[in-house]
Amino acid sequence: MSNRYAVILAAGQGKRMKSDLYKVLHPVCGKPMVEHVVDNVRRAGLTEVVTVIGHGADSVKEHLGDHVSYVLQKEQLGTGHAVMQAEELLADKDGVTIVLCGDTPIIRSETMESLMNYHENTGAKATILTAHAEEPAGYGRIIRNEQGQVTRIVEHKDANENERLVKEINTGTYCFDNKALFKALEQVGNNNVQGEYYLPDVIEILKKQGEHLAAWQTDDFHETIGVNDRPALAKAEKALKHRINEYWMKQGVTMIDPDHTYISAEAVLGQDTVLYPGTFLHGKVNIGRDCVIGPNTEITDSTIGSYGEIKQSVVSHSTIGNYVKIGPFAHIRPETSIADDVKIGNFVELKKTSFGKGSKASHLSYIGDAEVGSDVNVGCGSITVNYDGEKKHLTKIEDGAFIGCNANLIAPVTVGKEAYVAAGSTITEDVPGEALSIARSRQTNKEGYVKKKD
Amino acid sequence: MSNRYAVILAAGQGKRMKSDLYKVLHPVCGKPMVEHVVDNVRRAGLTEVVTVIGHGADSVKEHLGDHVSYVLQKEQLGTGHAVMQAEELLADKDGVTIVLCGDTPIIRSETMESLMNYHENTGAKATILTAHAEEPAGYGRIIRNEQGQVTRIVEHKDANENERLVKEINTGTYCFDNKALFKALEQVGNNNVQGEYYLPDVIEILKKQGEHLAAWQTDDFHETIGVNDRPALAKAEKALKHRINEYWMKQGVTMIDPDHTYISAEAVLGQDTVLYPGTFLHGKVNIGRDCVIGPNTEITDSTIGSYGEIKQSVVSHSTIGNYVKIGPFAHIRPETSIADDVKIGNFVELKKTSFGKGSKASHLSYIGDAEVGSDVNVGCGSITVNYDGEKKHLTKIEDGAFIGCNANLIAPVTVGKEAYVAAGSTITEDVPGEALSIARSRQTNKEGYVKKKD
Amino acid sequence: MSNRYAVILAAGQGKRMKSDLYKVLHPVCGKPMVEHVVDNVRRAGLTEVVTVIGHGADSVKEHLGDHVSYVLQKEQLGTGHAVMQAEELLADKDGVTIVLCGDTPIIRSETMESLMNYHENTGAKATILTAHAEEPAGYGRIIRNEQGQVTRIVEHKDANENERLVKEINTGTYCFDNKALFKALEQVGNNNVQGEYYLPDVIEILKKQGEHLAAWQTDDFHETIGVNDRPALAKAEKALKHRINEYWMKQGVTMIDPDHTYISAEAVLGQDTVLYPGTFLHGKVNIGRDCVIGPNTEITDSTIGSYGEIKQSVVSHSTIGNYVKIGPFAHIRPETSIADDVKIGNFVELKKTSFGKGSKASHLSYIGDAEVGSDVNVGCGSITVNYDGEKKHLTKIEDGAFIGCNANLIAPVTVGKEAYVAAGSTITEDVPGEALSIARSRQTNKEGYVKKKD
Repeated sequence: MSNRYAVILAAGQGKRMKSDLYKVLHPVCGKPMVEHVVDNVRRAGLTEVVTVIGHGADSVKEHLGDHVSYVLQKEQLGTGHAVMQAEELLADKDGVTIVLCGDTPIIRSETMESLMNYHENTGAKATILTAHAEEPAGYGRIIRNEQGQVTRIVEHKDANENERLVKEINTGTYCFDNKALFKALEQVGNNNVQGEYYLPDVIEILKKQGEHLAAWQTDDFHETIGVNDRPALAKAEKALKHRINEYWMKQGVTMIDPDHTYISAEAVLGQDTVLYPGTFLHGKVNIGRDCVIGPNTEITDSTIGSYGEIKQSVVSHSTIGNYVKIGPFAHIRPETSIADDVKIGNFVELKKTSFGKGSKASHLSYIGDAEVGSDVNVGCGSITVNYDGEKKHLTKIEDGAFIGCNANLIAPVTVGKEAYVAAGSTITEDVPGEALSIARSRQTNKEGYVKKKD
Repeated sequence: MSNRYAVILAAGQGKRMKSDLYKVLHPVCGKPMVEHVVDNVRRAGLTEVVTVIGHGADSVKEHLGDHVSYVLQKEQLGTGHAVMQAEELLADKDGVTIVLCGDTPIIRSETMESLMNYHENTGAKATILTAHAEEPAGYGRIIRNEQGQVTRIVEHKDANENERLVKEINTGTYCFDNKALFKALEQVGNNNVQGEYYLPDVIEILKKQGEHLAAWQTDDFHETIGVNDRPALAKAEKALKHRINEYWMKQGVTMIDPDHTYISAEAVLGQDTVLYPGTFLHGKVNIGRDCVIGPNTEITDSTIGSYGEIKQSVVSHSTIGNYVKIGPFAHIRPETSIADDVKIGNFVELKKTSFGKGSKASHLSYIGDAEVGSDVNVGCGSITVNYDGEKKHLTKIEDGAFIGCNANLIAPVTVGKEAYVAAGSTITEDVPGEALSIARSRQTNKEGYVKKKD
Repeated sequence: MSNRYAVILAAGQGKRMKSDLYKVLHPVCGKPMVEHVVDNVRRAGLTEVVTVIGHGADSVKEHLGDHVSYVLQKEQLGTGHAVMQAEELLADKDGVTIVLCGDTPIIRSETMESLMNYHENTGAKATILTAHAEEPAGYGRIIRNEQGQVTRIVEHKDANENERLVKEINTGTYCFDNKALFKALEQVGNNNVQGEYYLPDVIEILKKQGEHLAAWQTDDFHETIGVNDRPALAKAEKALKHRINEYWMKQGVTMIDPDHTYISAEAVLGQDTVLYPGTFLHGKVNIGRDCVIGPNTEITDSTIGSYGEIKQSVVSHSTIGNYVKIGPFAHIRPETSIADDVKIGNFVELKKTSFGKGSKASHLSYIGDAEVGSDVNVGCGSITVNYDGEKKHLTKIEDGAFIGCNANLIAPVTVGKEAYVAAGSTITEDVPGEALSIARSRQTNKEGYVKKKD
């Protein structure tokens, strides 16, 4: 195998996106398009990856980091001009170069490898990635001779009636002999309506030089989607979603409705876990086995153990143990850590809290900036008053404590081991272990009051 | 361009809908079917629109108002009979008449115009709106001669083997020379199994008179859906949803999953706003730019500013400023107005409240019938006690006030500027500005209580 | 009509499911696959149903109960071997036997009946259930002679180029003359790569004996899905969902988006009820007429009256009357019974509670283990304190009582008829009828406190 290079075209503005965000930075399944391309290229094991940047150059660099080289295309003068910017970095190197657009996030690394392998095996100077399109209108067609050899690419508008019947289309991804590419690029002119230097002209030039051209067809048309507007962005999202979901289902995850289950490319799921519709796993989510997640549940950058249940809830940046039941309508906010056998019920919010083994907060509570021990019962409506208008303070609830309903724990405060806070109490001072703490008024019944009032 | 009229057939009961609601009043994307037809017809710029009503006549009139004329079809004796009811209003007028069914809500005004333009250009006396159906079974077929001229419509059941192969189908929408239409209608008989007067017989009659017939084919089969039962209603909803969503995506709105995003025909969305799945925008919703809406969020008849975020929440009949974060699990009820830079957190309900700039209600609160100033902090669990069992009263919270957790503000009551209400207090009297107000009992710790109890 | 028997093959482990749950027990629309098969078979009116069990035999028996007979296949030696296990129960009986796989949950009883009727009418000894597959790759093909008679089944891998063009495929469901089946089974060998006894060999054997073979083609390819992995499980779920939803739409139920509405096979829905997307009806759910359910609402094993509204809520094992409004964000937990004209608002939880006619709990409340009379107003944030850390106790709120906001009712406790509990009170003793009960501290305003503090 010869050296392999990639040039990724990521300089365009993408007017049809109608966006202030540069086109290649629009996310698909939570990750910018161009990052998908780079990740897939890197997985294909290339020697060097050159990204051509222009519009939003700094933002693109910030996203991609230093895993790739950059060349700046100051003016956008066409795809040929874009590749030409990589001349200094690549032109004198032996090997094979794949040229990809930064707006084709769905092309798999396997496809890239197959394309390059085929290219090397056929000894072609240029190989086009093609696909079979059921509705090819608008695409450039691949014209082959009777022996099946590629003779040329014809644009849709230039195609005659017979050529328009051809369903093998040009995806816009190419593989070249690296030196031949840069040599041919020098001959590409801009004598056309747009005044641009077009990369496909290289194909024509090599052809005229009598070089061998080839084409390799992927069996998955959808992976070649180029995202030029938001309807295409939605299509790319759908195609990637389908790929991710099929993968996890084959690993033993049940999805009641994969069309409506949204899993990030970085999520990891355990066997026999069931995802209900309306489940969103954003970013790095790790879920154990035999869980039931959803419906209508969002989990972001969190680790969930096994045998648990999370429904109609939102969880982010937290760690959750085994056999934990959450929801419906619970909100687990960042920096929360929940131990095993915990129950977090409806209308409960946890934030920056460690919540011990076997503890429960079943209804209508807010526990923030707190350390809750094991086997604690947090009564309905009880609240950690963590904010005094200026600073946040810590609440500690030790093992086995019982917090009565609608109690306020005014932080900083500690409720000791197995202590009991009476319902309706506002606790301003520490409660010793095993103490009963009460802070409320005696009840008075004014009999007949309602009648009198009328 | 000659005068143009429309006759809309809206008299049927629609037995297959199995509904107490008259067929044409069933909503599609939140608007009754017949209202879609009328709105689209009016957008096509007609001189006069006559609606034939029968079943549910009063309800239909109430929905459509006085933008259209009405004629009553007392008995439902067929489509020809229905159009005949418009005789008095239209029969002696020169011009062109389009006849539409009130159950075809998806036909675009552009399609109506193209049909009428084509009709006028060809000089035909009748022009049929046709479509290409991949699966034409059940539809009437358009039979053309070798010159491509329409010779007749043949019903599916009457079609021979060759005719059944034809995929150009009759959509049931027609355009006529107005006078020719009413003249021909007089000759339509009811000598058939159903004993009904059929509009398509007019075509046959004109043909026999040697008049020129034409057909104009729309390229969008889906827009011609006629809604006769609820599965068709769901299809119409899906087709219109697709049209609306494609439109907004092309305007620069990102939809993570357009198949599962539900936008009313009257909504307006700003550029770079992102809609997550399970977003429902009902009625007149206006959302600014760079917002993130959803998942699982319902917004009804409300105006939302820019740069905000609303997730897993319900908002109705309210106005919301810029840089506002709402949710998850918040409920903004009618007559609420939220200023810029506000945060409304989980399990918070606002009703008939103005909520000032920079103020926060982050958890588990109900603020109803209230005027809340700017930079107010509404603590977790605090409540405006607006109802005394008989009347609702107003709560005022002035700028910079701090309401402690689980506090009750018993309305009518005012908390002054920068005042501080202690957690757990029930406030029955006004709190002066900069005062601390407290209404709670001292805490007692009964040590060893838990041990003793055992 | 002769006697009819069924043999259901439910012994396999289903390795490709990658599951600890035996394959045929994976649920589709909430019911184990094999239970669908058994229910459909029973609906087809068979004399006897024999289920062949193996992996997970006890679990399968537990699910199916004693409506069917069981035979144990100790080792899984192929489909022929599996059917052979039923020999003792069936071999000497006259009649017709349908053989079904336990992983084909979508085949309708009508299809089974049509297959058996066709089988009897043609006098065939074996009849294959076939379907038209647009993409037949992978399936066995049905080869017919010029007269349309079935000559053989050819596996995909053994098919020649012409045979591969055939789109009529073998679904794996068969109907046999019962005695002929068991006689032929004795001749089936295991001389093949897998060393298994294959049921389709019976076809070949009967053919060689000069017996008549037939094939009956269902017009619904989707119903013949065999579930071997989770992507197929998701497809089966989708197909059954579609069938259920079409049925209810035709009965007069509106679904805004049937693709995203999930109704169990056992649910019953009234006319003119509208289901919004994200509605899940699990198990035995009965909903009256003219309700609006959803979006994002889960209802499990409950009965809901007519003219109600439930949105963004979760309801389970409860009974709800007419004209009841629930949600958004309410949670009705098991053993709750709600009378007519009730309103349960946002962030309210009911558990094991009877809630009387015309009563309201509009915001942020937990009512558990309670009997609530009629026309009661449960104020915002009020809580039944039903748990003392050891036991649950009952709260009674009698007719017309008014519970103030953030009140705690410490059970066991009774609030009498038309009594009034003041906001912020913690009630530990019974409140007599028409009394005002209050338990809170007087308010103190410390003027200028905020200034001093700074």
